[in-house]
Amino acid sequence: MSEQLGMQHKKSEFSEWYNEIVQKAELADHSSVSGCMVIRPYAHAIWERIQRALDDRFKARGVQNTYFPMFIPESLLKKESEHIEGFAPEVAWVTHSGETKLGERLAVRPTSETIMYESFAKWIRSWRDLPLKINQWCNIVRWEFKHPMLFLRTREFLWQEGHTAFADKETAKRDVEDAREDYRAVYEDLMAVPVVSGLKSEKEKFAGAEYTTTLEIMMPDGWVIQGCTSHHLGQNFSRPFGITFKDKDEKDQHVYQNSWGFTTRSMGILFATHGDDKGLIVPPRVAPVQAVIVPIYKDENKTEVLKYAHEISEKLPGLRVHVDDRDAYTPGFKFNWWELRGVPLRIECGPRDMASKEAVFVRRDDGKKTAVKLTGLREKAEAALEEIQKSLYSKAKKFADEHTKEASNMTELKKHLDGNRIRALWCGSRTCEDGVREETGAKISCLPYGLNTKPVKGECVYCGKGASHAAYFGRSY
Amino acid sequence: MSEQLGMQHKKSEFSEWYNEIVQKAELADHSSVSGCMVIRPYAHAIWERIQRALDDRFKARGVQNTYFPMFIPESLLKKESEHIEGFAPEVAWVTHSGETKLGERLAVRPTSETIMYESFAKWIRSWRDLPLKINQWCNIVRWEFKHPMLFLRTREFLWQEGHTAFADKETAKRDVEDAREDYRAVYEDLMAVPVVSGLKSEKEKFAGAEYTTTLEIMMPDGWVIQGCTSHHLGQNFSRPFGITFKDKDEKDQHVYQNSWGFTTRSMGILFATHGDDKGLIVPPRVAPVQAVIVPIYKDENKTEVLKYAHEISEKLPGLRVHVDDRDAYTPGFKFNWWELRGVPLRIECGPRDMASKEAVFVRRDDGKKTAVKLTGLREKAEAALEEIQKSLYSKAKKFADEHTKEASNMTELKKHLDGNRIRALWCGSRTCEDGVREETGAKISCLPYGLNTKPVKGECVYCGKGASHAAYFGRSY
Repeated sequence: MSEQLGMQHKKSEFSEWYNEIVQKAELADHSSVSGCMVIRPYAHAIWERIQRALDDRFKARGVQNTYFPMFIPESLLKKESEHIEGFAPEVAWVTHSGETKLGERLAVRPTSETIMYESFAKWIRSWRDLPLKINQWCNIVRWEFKHPMLFLRTREFLWQEGHTAFADKETAKRDVEDAREDYRAVYEDLMAVPVVSGLKSEKEKFAGAEYTTTLEIMMPDGWVIQGCTSHHLGQNFSRPFGITFKDKDEKDQHVYQNSWGFTTRSMGILFATHGDDKGLIVPPRVAPVQAVIVPIYKDENKTEVLKYAHEISEKLPGLRVHVDDRDAYTPGFKFNWWELRGVPLRIECGPRDMASKEAVFVRRDDGKKTAVKLTGLREKAEAALEEIQKSLYSKAKKFADEHTKEASNMTELKKHLDGNRIRALWCGSRTCEDGVREETGAKISCLPYGLNTKPVKGECVYCGKGASHAAYFGRSY
Repeated sequence: MSEQLGMQHKKSEFSEWYNEIVQKAELADHSSVSGCMVIRPYAHAIWERIQRALDDRFKARGVQNTYFPMFIPESLLKKESEHIEGFAPEVAWVTHSGETKLGERLAVRPTSETIMYESFAKWIRSWRDLPLKINQWCNIVRWEFKHPMLFLRTREFLWQEGHTAFADKETAKRDVEDAREDYRAVYEDLMAVPVVSGLKSEKEKFAGAEYTTTLEIMMPDGWVIQGCTSHHLGQNFSRPFGITFKDKDEKDQHVYQNSWGFTTRSMGILFATHGDDKGLIVPPRVAPVQAVIVPIYKDENKTEVLKYAHEISEKLPGLRVHVDDRDAYTPGFKFNWWELRGVPLRIECGPRDMASKEAVFVRRDDGKKTAVKLTGLREKAEAALEEIQKSLYSKAKKFADEHTKEASNMTELKKHLDGNRIRALWCGSRTCEDGVREETGAKISCLPYGLNTKPVKGECVYCGKGASHAAYFGRSY
C-alpha cells in the first residue's frame, strides 16, 4: 500500500501532477454528473478555515449574511441586458417539477445579482437604509463546456457573493477595494499565495459591471488564473431594478452597487502553488492539521511510546495536532501518508527520544530534521510553523517573479510566453487585445495597480502606437 | 413609524401572527420564485448559531464535512425504488443547459442519499474504512404544492444531512440515537424548545428507511410539527449501491447506514414557540443580540449618556451586546424595535441611572424591570439571561403538556383534537392509522419513546382491539 501512496507524476508535469494529487490526497472526486465534483473532508476542512477567515473580515466591516433562492425566473435574469448576454449560454434551466411543466423556466443561479436586487428595491427606501452590505455563502452553477479540472473549473462550485449598495459612488468604490483587500489578505497572509491586484480590461470585466478588479495568480506552469473578483456596478443594476432611496433632501436617487466573490477555486490554486513532487504542502495557518505526531514503537515499548506521543500533543495547546496512533500501519507508511497530505510539521518520537525527553521535528517544505527538547515545545512548534508559512510565501513569490518577463513587441512576447506571464504595454484598444489573443492565445489577465499608478509611457506591444496601460498577458485557466 | 412596528395580530390568531412577525421582525421574505424564501440577516445570524452548535457536536463525535453535487442524474436517483417513489413527485428537473437539451435529466437534490452512496461504494473497501461519518450543509429542493409558510414549509430550504456507514447494525443504531440526541440538545438546551422523541409509524417513515426517529414539537395552535429526523437505512441502500467491505476475515459484507437531517424549519418552530403579542422572544443562548443597551438622553446630556451606555457595554465582555445609539429614533421607538425582534434583555440608561451608577434591566419575556448597580453587572446580566432561558423552556413545556390530551376512543379523540395533540393507544395497523386520518385529519406524529418502553396494554383508539403502541396523534404542519 505504501507504493500506492507515492506520487507517479512530478510537479513539472503540472496537469497530470495536479489531477493525481487531488485524488491521492483525497481532496476531491469526480461524480456521475459530468463536470461536478465531490469535495472530500480534508479539502472541506481547509475551505471551512478560508470561509471563517473571510467571514470574520466581512463581519468586521458590517457585512451581514443572508440566503436568497437558488432559482431565478427567466424574466428576472433578463432584466439587465449585458448580464444575461454574459451568462445565458452557461445557465442550467429547471423546466419541470415532478411531471409538471413549469409556467416559466427557472435558472439555477449563475450569480445572484438579479434575485437579490429585486429584494434590494423593496428594502431600500431612505438614506437611513444605506449602506446595505449583504453576503451569502452558497453553490453556483455555470454549465461550461471547457475541460473540467477539480476545484479550478467545475460546473458547480461553492462561493461567497457580497452585494453592497451605497448612496454615493465614492463610498461604493472604496468598498470594492475593501473586498479586494479582504481577498488579498486571505490569499497572501492565510494561504501564502502571492497575488497581483489589478483591473480587468473592458473585454474581460463582469457582465454588467462598470469595472472589475481582480487578484491574478501565477500557476506552476506559468499560466495565470483569476483568484477572485470585485466589481463596481455603478447604477447599471439599480436603474433597471428601480433601487432608489430618498436622500436627505427627500429627492429620489439610484444607489451605487458592487458585487464581489471568492470561490472554492481558491483551494485548487492553493494546492497547485505549494505542492511538490511528494504531494501537497498546506500552509500552517490554513492547515486542518498543523502538526502530526508519529510514534515509532515496537511491541515491547508500544504503551510507553504511545503515552509519550500523547504527552507531546498535550504540550501543544492551541495548535491543531493529530497523533497518528493507528496500529495497522508502519511509521514509514504514515510518513508518506501525511507528506502526501502536506501537513506542515511532522513530530516523530521513539524510545530514544523518550529517554532524552526529546522529539524530532521534520518540516514538510524542506524536509529538515531537528531534534528538540520538550521544554518550551509549543513555542518551538509555533516558530517552526511560522517559518514554514513565511518560507512558502517567499518561494511562491520568487517563482512568480522569475516567471514574469517583459516584452516590448510581439516577437519578445511570443519568445517568452511558454511558461511565463508577460508584462507589456498596451494602447487600450480591443483590436490589439484581440490581436495578441489570436496570435498567441494570451489574454490580458489584469492591468496591475502597481504598474499603472503613474501615466504609462511607451509603445503598445501589438500596434506600436502610444500605450496607455501596463498589462499582464498570459495563457490562463 | 412607531405604529408600523406594532403587531396587528395577537398570537392567538397564530397563522396571521406568524406571517406578520416573520415580515415585521425582518426574518424572511417572499421572492419572485413561488414558495422560495429569502432568509434575512437577523434570522441568518440565528441559523449560524444553530449551525455552529450542531457542527461542533457532530465534529466531537467524528463526523466530517463534505460537499456533494447538487444535481443527481435521473438513473441514479431511481436506484432505490421506495426512495424514488417517495421523492419523484416533488423533484425539480434540470433539462437544458443554455439552449442545449441534456442527454439525461438532472434532479435538483431532494436529499443526497443516492449521489453520496455512489461515492461511498468507491471509498469503502475494508473494515478499516469504517465507520464513515459524513455531513454536508447545503440547500435542498422539494417542489411541494402545499401552501408555503416561510421557514416552516418552503420549496427550497437549508439543512445539514449526515450520512454514516457502519460494519454492524448495532453500532449503526446507536448512531441514529446519537444524532437524535444532538438534535434534542440543540432544540431543548439552545433553543429552549421542548421536544418529544419517538419513532415514526411505517406509513410516515422516510422513503427507503428501515425506521425513522423524530423529534415532535407542539405548535402554538396545538398542531404538531416534525422537528427533524434520524433514519436507520439498514442495508436498503448498501445493496443496490454495492457498498461492501472486506471484514476482518476477508469476507465481503454490506454496510449498515443511517441518514439524519435538521433544517431551517427549526427557526420557524423557534419563532412560533417563544413569540408573544409584542413580537419575537429569542432565547438568550441562540440570540444574535442578547442585550441591547438603549441610552435615554436629551440634547444637553447626550454626550455623557452615550458615553455611559458604551461603558456599560464594556462591562459585559463575552455577552453579545449592542448599543443602540441611533440618533434618528426615540427611545420609545427603539424599545418597540427590539421588543419586536425579541432581544431577551434590554438595558436602559438615562442621566439619573448615570448619577447613581445604575442601569435598568427589562426582561423581554415578562417585562419585569429591575434597577441594578453597575458593580458585578456581567454576573447580573448572565444570571438574568439564564433565568430567561429557563423560563422560556418551562413555559413552552407547560404549554405542550397542557395541550396534550388522552383519548381512549374516537369520540374522545375528536372532542379534544381542536387545539391539542392526542395521546392514544394504537394497534399498529395501517387501516386504523388511515381511519383516524380520514375521519379527523390527524396523523400519527410519533410513537414516543417514553410511552413505549414497557409493553403497551389496552385498546386501539380506532378499532378497539388490542393495542401495541402508544402514539401521539395530531393535525400537523
